[in-house]
Amino acid sequence: MYLGKVIGNIWATKKYPAVHSLKMMLIQPLDAEQNNSGEPLIAIDTVGSGPGEIVFYITASEAVIPLPVDFAPVDASIVGIVDSINIEN
Amino acid sequence: MYLGKVIGNIWATKKYPAVHSLKMMLIQPLDAEQNNSGEPLIAIDTVGSGPGEIVFYITASEAVIPLPVDFAPVDASIVGIVDSINIEN
Amino acid sequence: MYLGKVIGNIWATKKYPAVHSLKMMLIQPLDAEQNNSGEPLIAIDTVGSGPGEIVFYITASEAVIPLPVDFAPVDASIVGIVDSINIEN
Amino acid sequence: MYLGKVIGNIWATKKYPAVHSLKMMLIQPLDAEQNNSGEPLIAIDTVGSGPGEIVFYITASEAVIPLPVDFAPVDASIVGIVDSINIEN
Amino acid sequence: MYLGKVIGNIWATKKYPAVHSLKMMLIQPLDAEQNNSGEPLIAIDTVGSGPGEIVFYITASEAVIPLPVDFAPVDASIVGIVDSINIEN
Repeated sequence: MYLGKVIGNIWATKKYPAVHSLKMMLIQPLDAEQNNSGEPLIAIDTVGSGPGEIVFYITASEAVIPLPVDFAPVDASIVGIVDSINIEN
Repeated sequence: MYLGKVIGNIWATKKYPAVHSLKMMLIQPLDAEQNNSGEPLIAIDTVGSGPGEIVFYITASEAVIPLPVDFAPVDASIVGIVDSINIEN
Repeated sequence: MYLGKVIGNIWATKKYPAVHSLKMMLIQPLDAEQNNSGEPLIAIDTVGSGPGEIVFYITASEAVIPLPVDFAPVDASIVGIVDSINIEN
Repeated sequence: MYLGKVIGNIWATKKYPAVHSLKMMLIQPLDAEQNNSGEPLIAIDTVGSGPGEIVFYITASEAVIPLPVDFAPVDASIVGIVDSINIEN
Repeated sequence: MYLGKVIGNIWATKKYPAVHSLKMMLIQPLDAEQNNSGEPLIAIDTVGSGPGEIVFYITASEAVIPLPVDFAPVDASIVGIVDSINIEN
């Protein structure tokens, strides 16, 4: 899983049916110090996250597991909102 | 899912049978500000997108889900045409 | 599999149910000489690892195999604690 | 799918049985202008491609779909020979 | 598949049960001219390879196919020892 910040969302009226009811958030990947790291991607929200929140998200095949629809063509999903990042190194 | 712009297409007469009826678009990946980000890839169109349109696409195993054929050797598909990108950060 | 060092953990109260009981560790990827290599990611601990330990972890679909729950939306898991790295080149 | 050029092949007598009958081509990834882009990889030929030809190839799980054997440990396959790349941007 | 050189191995006593009997080799990825390319990773040996040998390896889901155990949490496996790399470009 990766750390990211919700920075917005994507609106699309013409899309594949199975993704119609899903909330598509724009995520900025973050490093452990919460600095931007790499380019934004689009992930489906499954936990009620909103703009400005630090979340963790999954990518690839596992991203379909938390979705309310079967066989959705989705490759990234937000699975939690981060309360704290504890670095003990 | 990732943001991209349809910049053209690929034509191939000699190809694996299961991809014969699929429209292969050339996609330029974009960042959230719609600047080019990385190298173009080939994705199957499933929503009627055309050159110049901003789309979002998926990669890896999930890319076969929206296709009209089973077991197509495909690893990237366009699943929506973007109306707006809302950045609220 | 990749080498990494456990550098902390992530706490989240609001998350997808299937990941509730899993320990989410923050991992710094390492190269063969144990120097930092790339950005930290979050992996599920399956072997009782703790901060400062050198581990090896897997990513993608296989990451769900060692988990105690079925269909958890997880894409990285720690599968061993490294005793020694033997370079014979 | 990605664009690439067949630049050679790999010969191996000691290999996992399920890949014995497969043709392993060396592919140089290309960008849309057909310039080299990244490092070569090994892909299984499924369309009769040869050195110097521009092809498109798939990676990851889908790469096993076009193979004549089941459960081959393969993660990249050539699925078409490119006739033309049309850029309309 | 990718080219690599076996540069050593990893020893771990505390690990997930399904990987206990597997030989974990340290692989240095190579480019087509056999120069180092990127950081080492850990792959399971399935063909009797040893230090100094040039091999090709697979990553992701397919890496479990050649293993003697089912459902092992493994994401990289060596599937052949390279006899020759023929560049005809």
